[in-house]
Amino acid sequence: MRKIRIDANTYVYPNPVTLVGTKVEGRANFMAVGWVSRVNRKPPLIGIGVNRVHYTAKGIQETKTFSINFPSADMAESVDYCGMVSGKKVDKSNIFETFYGSLKTAPMITESALCMECKLFDTVELPANHFFIGEIVTCYTEEKYLTDGNLDIKKMNPLLLTMPDKSYWTVGEYAGKAWSIGKKLQR
Amino acid sequence: MRKIRIDANTYVYPNPVTLVGTKVEGRANFMAVGWVSRVNRKPPLIGIGVNRVHYTAKGIQETKTFSINFPSADMAESVDYCGMVSGKKVDKSNIFETFYGSLKTAPMITESALCMECKLFDTVELPANHFFIGEIVTCYTEEKYLTDGNLDIKKMNPLLLTMPDKSYWTVGEYAGKAWSIGKKLQR
Repeated sequence: MRKIRIDANTYVYPNPVTLVGTKVEGRANFMAVGWVSRVNRKPPLIGIGVNRVHYTAKGIQETKTFSINFPSADMAESVDYCGMVSGKKVDKSNIFETFYGSLKTAPMITESALCMECKLFDTVELPANHFFIGEIVTCYTEEKYLTDGNLDIKKMNPLLLTMPDKSYWTVGEYAGKAWSIGKKLQR
Repeated sequence: MRKIRIDANTYVYPNPVTLVGTKVEGRANFMAVGWVSRVNRKPPLIGIGVNRVHYTAKGIQETKTFSINFPSADMAESVDYCGMVSGKKVDKSNIFETFYGSLKTAPMITESALCMECKLFDTVELPANHFFIGEIVTCYTEEKYLTDGNLDIKKMNPLLLTMPDKSYWTVGEYAGKAWSIGKKLQR
C-alpha cells in the first residue's frame, strides 16, 4: 500500500456549487455555498454550512428562511463574484433576476435551473460555522430542464468546485444506473 | 418567468458519491452515502446523513468513528452493490481491500483515491436520519492522485449521483478558476 497522509482539512470531491439566497436588511443577497447536503427525506431537509460571521447567516437568523439555487456553468462568473464579495459591503441584489415564493423572504434566482425555497428547521452551532437545516417547502424549475418529468443534469449543467485548487468543473459522462449495475455482484 | 413547481423532495445536483466505512459487530462494513458535506473548517468537520435504521448508524454509535472513502468511477459496480444490500444481511467486509489508521475502528478502502478517517464529533437527530458530524483526523491518498501537491479530481475520477433518475456521472471539463473569474464583475 502506497498511502500517504495529507492535510485533514481536505474537502469533498467535488462540492456542488449553489447560491444561497437571503433577505438581509430588506434586500436580496446571494452567497456561493459548496457545503450543502440533503439530510432527511421526510420531511425533505437540506443543510448548509455557513460561517457565522457571514451576512447570509444574519439573513437566515432574521427571516428564518433561505433559498438554495443551482446555477448553470454559464453563470460561473456571477457565482464566483457572489463568493468573493460580502453583502455587508456590496449590494448583490441586482446581479440576478429574482423572484419570491410563498415564504416571501427567500429570494430565488430566475436564471437558476433549480431553486429550493426553505424554511429554517434547525440550526446546529459548530465551532466556526452554523449548519443551517432547512425544510424544503417548494422547488422551482422550468420545463426545459426536464426529461421524462425529472430534472436532467445535462440540461441543468450545474457547476462543481474543488478545493484547495480553487477550480470549477462541469458534470461529464453518464457512468451507469444506480441500484442496478451492482446487481452483478449479488449471488 | 416560466417556473413550475416540482416535488419538494428534490435532491442536490449532483450528490458526490462516497462509501462510509464502519466496524459493526467486529467486521468492516461499507455503505454508499451521497448525503455528505463539510460543515466546519477548524476543526475540520464533515457530516453525513444516514437513516437511523442502517447498520452503518449502529457502527458509528458503537465505535464513535467512521471513514469516508471517495471511490473512482471504475469502482461503480462495487459502490452500487454497497448501496443495494445491508450489512445486516450481507458481509461486505471482503468487497474491498481495507486498512486502518490511528483510530483502529474506521475501516478504509485501499482502492479509494481519498480516505478520511473521522472521529464522531456530534450527532444531530433528525426525524428519520442521524446527521453524523465527524472530525477528520487523517486523510489518506497516493502520490498518483496528486498534481502540484494537491488532489487532482481528474486523476481521482470520482462518481456523482443524481436522483430520482438513479444515474451515476463522472466529472467533466474544467470550467474556470474560483475566487478569480468573478473579478470581471468587480468595479
